[in-house]
Amino acid sequence: MRVYNFSAGPSTMPVEVLETIQKELLDTDGAGYGHMEGSHRAKPYEAVNNDAQALLRELLNIPENYYILFLQGGATQQFEAIPLNLLGKNNKADYFDCGHWATRAATLAKPYADVNIVASSKEAKYTYVPSVENLPIRPDAAYLHVTSNNTIFGTRMTKYPKTNLNMIADMSSDILSRPINVADFAVIYAGAQKNMSCAGLTTVIVRKDLVDNDYTMPICPSIMKWKTHADANSLYNTPPTFAVYVLLRMLQWLKGKGGVEGIQIQNEAQAKRFYDYVDNSKMFSNPVNKADRSVMNLIFHAQTPELEAQFVAEAKEAKIVSIKGHKSVGGLRASFYNAVTDEMVDYLLNFMREFERKHLNECK
Amino acid sequence: MRVYNFSAGPSTMPVEVLETIQKELLDTDGAGYGHMEGSHRAKPYEAVNNDAQALLRELLNIPENYYILFLQGGATQQFEAIPLNLLGKNNKADYFDCGHWATRAATLAKPYADVNIVASSKEAKYTYVPSVENLPIRPDAAYLHVTSNNTIFGTRMTKYPKTNLNMIADMSSDILSRPINVADFAVIYAGAQKNMSCAGLTTVIVRKDLVDNDYTMPICPSIMKWKTHADANSLYNTPPTFAVYVLLRMLQWLKGKGGVEGIQIQNEAQAKRFYDYVDNSKMFSNPVNKADRSVMNLIFHAQTPELEAQFVAEAKEAKIVSIKGHKSVGGLRASFYNAVTDEMVDYLLNFMREFERKHLNECK
Repeated sequence: MRVYNFSAGPSTMPVEVLETIQKELLDTDGAGYGHMEGSHRAKPYEAVNNDAQALLRELLNIPENYYILFLQGGATQQFEAIPLNLLGKNNKADYFDCGHWATRAATLAKPYADVNIVASSKEAKYTYVPSVENLPIRPDAAYLHVTSNNTIFGTRMTKYPKTNLNMIADMSSDILSRPINVADFAVIYAGAQKNMSCAGLTTVIVRKDLVDNDYTMPICPSIMKWKTHADANSLYNTPPTFAVYVLLRMLQWLKGKGGVEGIQIQNEAQAKRFYDYVDNSKMFSNPVNKADRSVMNLIFHAQTPELEAQFVAEAKEAKIVSIKGHKSVGGLRASFYNAVTDEMVDYLLNFMREFERKHLNECK
Repeated sequence: MRVYNFSAGPSTMPVEVLETIQKELLDTDGAGYGHMEGSHRAKPYEAVNNDAQALLRELLNIPENYYILFLQGGATQQFEAIPLNLLGKNNKADYFDCGHWATRAATLAKPYADVNIVASSKEAKYTYVPSVENLPIRPDAAYLHVTSNNTIFGTRMTKYPKTNLNMIADMSSDILSRPINVADFAVIYAGAQKNMSCAGLTTVIVRKDLVDNDYTMPICPSIMKWKTHADANSLYNTPPTFAVYVLLRMLQWLKGKGGVEGIQIQNEAQAKRFYDYVDNSKMFSNPVNKADRSVMNLIFHAQTPELEAQFVAEAKEAKIVSIKGHKSVGGLRASFYNAVTDEMVDYLLNFMREFERKHLNECK
């Protein structure tokens, strides 16, 4: 019996994709073995590696002058890889701070970089995304780092700064959920465990000139150099082969849903229904500036910590899981990644309405 | 239809384990979701993380004064992590060179270390393992690095140097295939894609004092510090959750086989049958010093490159795959990891006998 899993990541996957993987686990594409078991140097994986790159390129319209790298270590490893790969000649790095992970990216860059925070909404507990206009970006910085969606605070960027700098975006929690113009960015990176695949795969999309010209710091370990992996077509060492195969099946599923343009319609409609209900609820509320609300991670509150604890407990009884807010902020959170169906949203909203009806007298 | 997959890694897995994973893919242990989809902060994964550590500790008899870390990046990432974690106060590192991966470990340490090769069989194309007696180990080196089994050259260590130094072993290709005395080593590490799990997981077993006392080089990135992960029980950032779950199922299967002591009997018997046949064959031969022959990776030759190409082609027709030698050395190779059954070995040997009978007149 499947539960209603609203985890912020690793997160629920489409049942159709899971059933395909299940069916193929002992024999994929007639190879006679599954992709947990195949040599990364054999033809079946060569096809997976190349097909996944090609389909990601197609779905995100990634120009030919970008490498697509399949790496390990998560976005957190990239927080250090970014300065190590880019600050060899110039150690100035600007960061746009709109949440916990943006802060982590800047903090982990500090041992390598002269870090400048160009804007922050920390003082307002990250309930909005700072304006991207007139930022004090240093014209001679090596790059500007942004975070497109904030899993913990439930916000997203809808506009990006206009800048001549190389812009780097952590898109871990909303890649493939809406169209982007890749050419606006020098580097896009994302942990896979939300919209892409299972955990253990990190995708880096990087403009070729940044890799081919050597901006790497001399202390950068070989394994963290993008060039190491670009030169080897992501086969420098054994890649997370199964996770790349799962990515391919997820991308094929997404293409069947009309690609990022198609899934965006679903995502926006689901979020609108959720926020419309919460905004009109007498019990639930959302603290985020409306224009900046995330379509992937929808946070909400229920007036008192006691009611929120009660909500989590009753949700569990109703087979709704991973609905708690991040431990650093408390409250409640539902993540509506691409795989979340309208039926799941219906179920959650019905549960919330029923909970509100039942417990309204306990509200202030 | 399953083929006979003798890949050196990622490699064939037990059908029983694959069928369990297949069955559990949409709902594991009643969680209502599979382990590709679960939050790494939720109870189901907490159990997987802790159970996999406990069972690995039991099967390898790992003393309590060792951490078990579940990391990403493969053994290749550890080639750099080892000096970065251990050479902060003393940059002398000794390496025992018995093959390609031992050389890689030493080469990748060079930017950080004063590397001393204490022995090498390179001049004999690594067809034997150097003696471990009377090695010119520097008594003031920070560690001695060894490689327990050589996937490419088909050799293994059966004795380890007696030394007061911290001994570090790359056991990627034979961990869990035979008993070891963990206390002889300061660090044991292994990529998972042979005897442990699918690719994308690296296990590091490290004596606690080496982590808790700070020997880390100041330039070591946080993500590569063992302490980062030890302090967080391998939950510093999102771990490769599915690969850890697969590890747990593989360990449970191994326990059912009598643990490492039980599987060792199978492994030694399979290898003996193979080598006995090859040694008596008029067509096939094995160049390795008998006492040093690997039980995991069995290399063989068929007199001419033409015959070997013919062997690979006919093998493919007979549904035998990944039987070619590593591209750097040529020849043929069959990997008999724990998951290879007696039936697979029978099938391969019958095929080889039939091939020999058919093509013997083409031999010199």
